This record gives sequence, C-alpha cells and structure tokens, in this order.
Amino acid sequence: MAHEEDWAGDAKNASPDGEFVRDTTYITDRLTAELAPGSAPRPREDGAFDWPVEAGRYRLIGARACPWAHRTIITRRLLGLEDAISLGLAGPTHDKRSWRFDLDPEGVDPVLRIPRLQDAYLARFPEYPRGITVPALVEVASGKVVTNDFPTIPVDFNDQWRGLAREGAPDLYPAELREEIDAVSKRVYTEVNNGVYRCGFAGSQEAYESAYHRLWTALDWLEERLSESRYLVGGHITLADIYLYPTLVRFDPVYHGHFKASRNKITEMPALWGYLRDLWQTPGFGDTTDILEIKQHYYAVHTDVNPTGVVPLGPDMTGLNTPHGREELPGTPFAEGVTLPGPVPAGEEVKNPDLSA
Amino acid sequence: MAHEEDWAGDAKNASPDGEFVRDTTYITDRLTAELAPGSAPRPREDGAFDWPVEAGRYRLIGARACPWAHRTIITRRLLGLEDAISLGLAGPTHDKRSWRFDLDPEGVDPVLRIPRLQDAYLARFPEYPRGITVPALVEVASGKVVTNDFPTIPVDFNDQWRGLAREGAPDLYPAELREEIDAVSKRVYTEVNNGVYRCGFAGSQEAYESAYHRLWTALDWLEERLSESRYLVGGHITLADIYLYPTLVRFDPVYHGHFKASRNKITEMPALWGYLRDLWQTPGFGDTTDILEIKQHYYAVHTDVNPTGVVPLGPDMTGLNTPHGREELPGTPFAEGVTLPGPVPAGEEVKNPDLSA
Repeated sequence: MAHEEDWAGDAKNASPDGEFVRDTTYITDRLTAELAPGSAPRPREDGAFDWPVEAGRYRLIGARACPWAHRTIITRRLLGLEDAISLGLAGPTHDKRSWRFDLDPEGVDPVLRIPRLQDAYLARFPEYPRGITVPALVEVASGKVVTNDFPTIPVDFNDQWRGLAREGAPDLYPAELREEIDAVSKRVYTEVNNGVYRCGFAGSQEAYESAYHRLWTALDWLEERLSESRYLVGGHITLADIYLYPTLVRFDPVYHGHFKASRNKITEMPALWGYLRDLWQTPGFGDTTDILEIKQHYYAVHTDVNPTGVVPLGPDMTGLNTPHGREELPGTPFAEGVTLPGPVPAGEEVKNPDLSA
Repeated sequence: MAHEEDWAGDAKNASPDGEFVRDTTYITDRLTAELAPGSAPRPREDGAFDWPVEAGRYRLIGARACPWAHRTIITRRLLGLEDAISLGLAGPTHDKRSWRFDLDPEGVDPVLRIPRLQDAYLARFPEYPRGITVPALVEVASGKVVTNDFPTIPVDFNDQWRGLAREGAPDLYPAELREEIDAVSKRVYTEVNNGVYRCGFAGSQEAYESAYHRLWTALDWLEERLSESRYLVGGHITLADIYLYPTLVRFDPVYHGHFKASRNKITEMPALWGYLRDLWQTPGFGDTTDILEIKQHYYAVHTDVNPTGVVPLGPDMTGLNTPHGREELPGTPFAEGVTLPGPVPAGEEVKNPDLSA
C-alpha cells in the first residue's frame, strides 16, 4: 500500500475540497532479465535504476493487511517464484515509523535482521522523505530497498522473472490482452482500489457522497461484467483479477463499515460474490489472505476513523468456502497447459485461517 | 432513549472494566385512569406522582432517531391515541444541552413553544441533574415534563388510556400473556436493545468481544423463535414486538457498522429479516420510521465513535418493501375484531421516506 500518511488519513492526501488524493510518488526502480545475474544496477535516463533478475538476491516485504502488497504476493505464488524471491511479512499494525516485523521472533525479519522496514529504506536513502510502504523489494546482501513501485512489481514478476518461474506457470499478462487488461485495471484502480479509500478518508459529507456514488457506479459495472464471464479479461485469470481481488476480499470486513462503502455487502452482489469465492478457492488467493490481520490493520491504524481501536469480530466470512457455481460461465482459471500452484511453502501459511465470527 | 451521556458514550456509563452500563434513573411518574380528568397529580408513596389520563392535556415528545421513543410512538399509533396525545419531534442531532426542535418552524416546538426539550425538564425541576431524554410526556398547560420513564409509557398507553383509544384498537399487553411478554422483553432489553450499545460503547477489545457474543447469542435465539411463529409472544403483535422492532430496523443502517455488531446483517437472518419486513409493512411501524434521521443521529452525535461526523449513504433498505412470506406462519397481526390503524395523521408523516442508497 501507498504511503504511511495514506493509512492514517493524513491531510497531505486530502485536496482542498476534502477529497482523498493518493500520493503516488514511489521508488521506480525495476527488475529486468536483460542484465546478467550478479550485475550492478544500471542507471536509467529518468534517474532510477534497473536491477537484474536473480534468484535469491531479493526479498519481497509485504504485509497480510495491505492490498497493494497482496497483489504482489498472489502474483509471486501463481508464478511459483517462492524459491527465487523470499517473503518477509510485517505485522498488521504500525506506528509513526510505519511497518514493523513484530510477528517475527524477537521482532526482527529473520533474513534482513531489521526490526522495521524503514531500516531498508534508510539504508539506501538516509534522508528518505516519503512514506515507508509495502510492497518493497529489498536486496538481501546490502539490506537496501530496490523498489516499492507497486504497479510494476507484478508486471516484472510476470515478464522478467519468467525464467525463474515454476513449470506450468500462467501468463498473467498475455500480449494480446494487455490493452484490455490495462483499461480495466485503470478503472478498477481509480474507482475501486482507490475508491474505497476516497469514501473512508473523505473530509466532508459532500466529498464522501460523491466518492460513494463513484464507487458504486464502478461496482455495478463490475457486477454486470462478471455476470457474463468468469474472469475480468479473456477466459482466464490475469493481472486484472489479481488487482481487483485484494479490494473485494477486504470489502465486507473493512470497507463496508469502516469506510462507509455501505450500499451493499459483496455477499449481496451475486456475480461479485461468486467471483470472489471462485478466486478465494483458487490456490494463491485465499491461501494468502488473512482476514484477521486485515481487520487489525485498518481498525487499529486509522485512529482518525476508529478512535476506540476496537477491532470488529464480524463479519462471518465462512461463506467464502461455499460453492460458487462460476464453472458454468465462459472461462477456466488457467489456459491449457498451465497447472495450479503447489501448496503454500512451509512458514508462509496465513496465521489466522479461521473465517467464523 | 436514555440519558444524554449514553448517546455520547460518556464515561459515566462505563464500568471499571470498560463495559457499557446504562444509567436507568428516570422520572417515574405515571398516568392513570383512576384519577378524574382535570385532577392534580397525586403523590405516591415512592415520592413520584400519578397523573390523570386526559385527552389534550399532554404532549408526547419523541425523536425519529431514538429507539426508546420509537416504542411509544408505535404504541400510540396502534392504539389510535393520536387525537388524545399530540406528538412533538426533536431533530436527529443534539448538543450538550440535548434534544432540540430544530426541524420545526423557527426551531421551536409549535405547541410547547420551546426550542429545547431541556426547557420542559427545567420547568419542573430547575436543577434537573440527569440527562434530557426522549420519550417524555409534557403537560401542555404548565410546560412541565410529567414522565420520561420509557418502560412504563407504552404499558400505561395500553392499560390506562384505553378509554381514549380508537375503536378496534388491539390489546398489546393481554393479561394472559403478560408473564411471557415480560420474560421475552426482559431478555430483549438486556441482550438486544442494550446489547447493541454494549458493543458500540465498549471501552476495550475484551469488553467488546464479550458484548458481541452476548448480542449474537440473543439474536440467534430470536432467529430460532421467529422461525416457528410470526410474532414473539402469542399469535399477534404485542408490546414484545414493539420493543424489538426499533432495534431491528436500526440494525443494518447503524448498529452493524457503527457499533460493530457485524457478524451478519439482519438481511442475512431469514426469520428476523422476514419478521422485520412484516412489521415494517404493518401500519404503525414503517410509517413511523425515518432511516435517514436515525443515521444522522448516531453518526453525528457519537463523535467518540465517528469523529468525522460523516453519515453513511448505505445500506440500501428498499428490501423492506419486498414480500416477507410470514403469512404462512402461525399468527396474524391482530386478534379478531381488531382493525388496522388508519393513515398517519397529517403533519406526522416521516420526512425521509426514501429507502434507496
């Protein structure tokens, strides 16, 4: 997820009329298969760097709570990059210095040996002026952050890391569908992924009402689109689905009440609810989702919205495991020849699999 | 509803372990048919007074927002006491001096000619030390509050005011069912009516979780009970139903999110949802319910819970008007010989009948 300030609803993210505006300035370094493993990063014309794809060189730092990190964790798993890129997970809550490894033994990441993600940012940029965000790729040997550019990390995983992907890995961003994936993902990003924040962090009744109508216009569009096909673009799971899922699975437990995105629960939208269950039940989605950590994050960190810090026990999410009936629609999870990801690597299981409330 | 402090989640209502405790000290004067119209109030041994039932002498002050006032407004209407007892309605929000007549022309109650309900309390008790609450019965001529004892007002309406009730009015508290009505109502009161507040005003995670489980244990009990019979006690609408309805109709728009009573929406509980729609569609219930004023009240007044003061647009409540199918269960709205209440008196219509979101 974006900047620390976003999570706390800081005024930096509000325009003068009270509308939430996301700060979108990131470290835009990228990973490329063009450079040989072992190479130093290569400067680009825009001032950022390209780094070589290389097994074991980087660690992906995420957090179960964060929808933007969740995209990268799902993509890594669908592609079977677990052996090539290790995963570190910050705990669900953070303070002024942002994400902490407080769920790890002794409160330090077992590979990077740091208590806070901030340490990796400061290792590279001692005066780093912006928010400490996940997802972040960190170079293990130097302990320096390489990139936190959440929109390009899944794309580079799919395109540049393919040589290290598992046998039978899907192409999540097929050339012939890129234009449509980009168009759908753009609308999903501005209207849904960000749209829920626009509702929750609205600084005025007027800004909230405008945000609410924008969000539900987009959700109605998705409901209609997903009534006719099993996935968002083409016949199989693509990055477009991976970008929508983290928001959908957080919707009923967090955005519906906490962000007042309350026209309906997703369980009341037949196509979206079937689609959410379908993805949830596909390896890579439900097995990377920790509903409790998600709730702990939002309800504990946003004291401006929830001053008591109490984390709700509801809703009952056991319905996620019920039959979804989406097999009858056009589409299958993956193209022919693609296999399902294997089991979750030992140590990466979600800590709170219970869905009852 | 109870005391001003309750609404604001004041510490006076929290026990040392963070559990919400309702202040239940009221003005316990009652109305009686034993005294002749025109009589002065008669002192009781307990220090309170009994006042004569008398058409036109009293004005009921309520607020659309308040569930405790809502009980009395429904009872008045089912019994057809509208001509005998006029109705004044405070607006949905209030300040440190509590309920205001800010929806009335010039911001004063058109009969009592006061801007705040507090004025009627102070007219009787110049040093009144407790919360200014609705429902309150006020003597019109003197401008003095007579009683704010919400548990006895509906009982006295049914028992003592029967001589002034409409032809065909129901007996909402039949002698042969009183014991059962009292038992069910007591559990509904402690576990549900108050249970939602116990969730919302819990001062700690532990107190909240305990309150949540207590509430849902009771709602599951009601779900089961209402799966087998159309109404709570006996074959017809009684005070027990009138006491449950105000909490149920506020549940999805307010208690589910604002008070974190979020295991399910009422729409997800088949029997409770059918029961709620059945009552909503019965004259006296839906036609006295203003969902918008309800939301405006809770979300604006509880700044401890909702510091932004933003009022959610959701949920979509149009489902309240859909067929409920409850006619197939044992029971009918009223006993033989009882008629439905007539139309809402002119000027008493709810101001915001729109249920969409």
